[in-house]
Amino acid sequence: MMNYADLLLKRRAIRDFEDRPIPENVVEAILQEATLAPSASNNQPCRFVVVHCRKTIKALSDESKANLLSDHAEKKIKLNPDYVGFLQNENFNVFYNAPCLIFIAGSASVNTLDVDGALAAGYIMFAAAARGLGTCWVALGANIRDPQLKGELGLPENCRIVAPLILGYPKAIPAPSERHAPDILRIIVEAG
Amino acid sequence: MMNYADLLLKRRAIRDFEDRPIPENVVEAILQEATLAPSASNNQPCRFVVVHCRKTIKALSDESKANLLSDHAEKKIKLNPDYVGFLQNENFNVFYNAPCLIFIAGSASVNTLDVDGALAAGYIMFAAAARGLGTCWVALGANIRDPQLKGELGLPENCRIVAPLILGYPKAIPAPSERHAPDILRIIVEAG
Repeated sequence: MMNYADLLLKRRAIRDFEDRPIPENVVEAILQEATLAPSASNNQPCRFVVVHCRKTIKALSDESKANLLSDHAEKKIKLNPDYVGFLQNENFNVFYNAPCLIFIAGSASVNTLDVDGALAAGYIMFAAAARGLGTCWVALGANIRDPQLKGELGLPENCRIVAPLILGYPKAIPAPSERHAPDILRIIVEAG
Repeated sequence: MMNYADLLLKRRAIRDFEDRPIPENVVEAILQEATLAPSASNNQPCRFVVVHCRKTIKALSDESKANLLSDHAEKKIKLNPDYVGFLQNENFNVFYNAPCLIFIAGSASVNTLDVDGALAAGYIMFAAAARGLGTCWVALGANIRDPQLKGELGLPENCRIVAPLILGYPKAIPAPSERHAPDILRIIVEAG
């Protein structure tokens, strides 16, 4: 039973994991909790794929890297130059060799899919932290197009990946990343 | 000090509020907590506008309703027919006469603004529930275009509203809305 104030401070982006698998029932409990996330009109559009297999995770990393680099070369997207270097490195796994990867996906026809998926991601990150697990949203890992790989993931044709989340037991808890004060543009009070 | 498991069950979408203002320092504490939300590359793009004034909230509701109806009439968007009826009703306030409204906004040039804003919204909803307050994300209230109103809110020209959140002391806590089981498309385990 974790205090929320403690959980707020405990959740970090984690990219370095112990070589230790996550029991399937722990992931299921986390996804069960994620169903409590709000969604537009309570539409609950999120669908999940869970990958416990490092070989598959590596193949997904390679696929996403290749697609990002080709989109960048064709000027469809503009990558940070630092990222181009990482992506060109064959040994760089965008999923940081995590033992588990969760894709949050949903029908591309749902207008609110990005925000619904992000809300569910927030719940998964808290649910994981409450269980001693670390997570990181790896946006670079969302570019999966190969029909065979999509088929292996059980992703229907019209399904879009919103959030790839890596999951594992943290090797260490890094210092909190810095935050600036809330950027409040204006506070409007009742006219006296 | 609230237990996270309790908070998960306590957070609801609330649309019926006591006629009781929210102290400014409570809203500030909530926004302070929202800064702990993750964002892409820790970019922290969210900016906030806080409106404690019912007259302004009513004007914002009227503005958003008028823009939605005109977009619908011009076939730029397709509204649910039920919503059209609500929006045409002069007495319907999209913000449910809440005593407080928070806009989460940010520069339209930030690609990840929707997901960064949704993650911050999740933190605000939990922060509010932990303090006995109710919230609801009112997507129908985001369509603010009038330059004078935008000026009053302190919103720069390039700033886009991601999430309007209403905030107040709940008159009652409704029953939880139903959730289906997590929609898990596939679980891929390590090949033996």
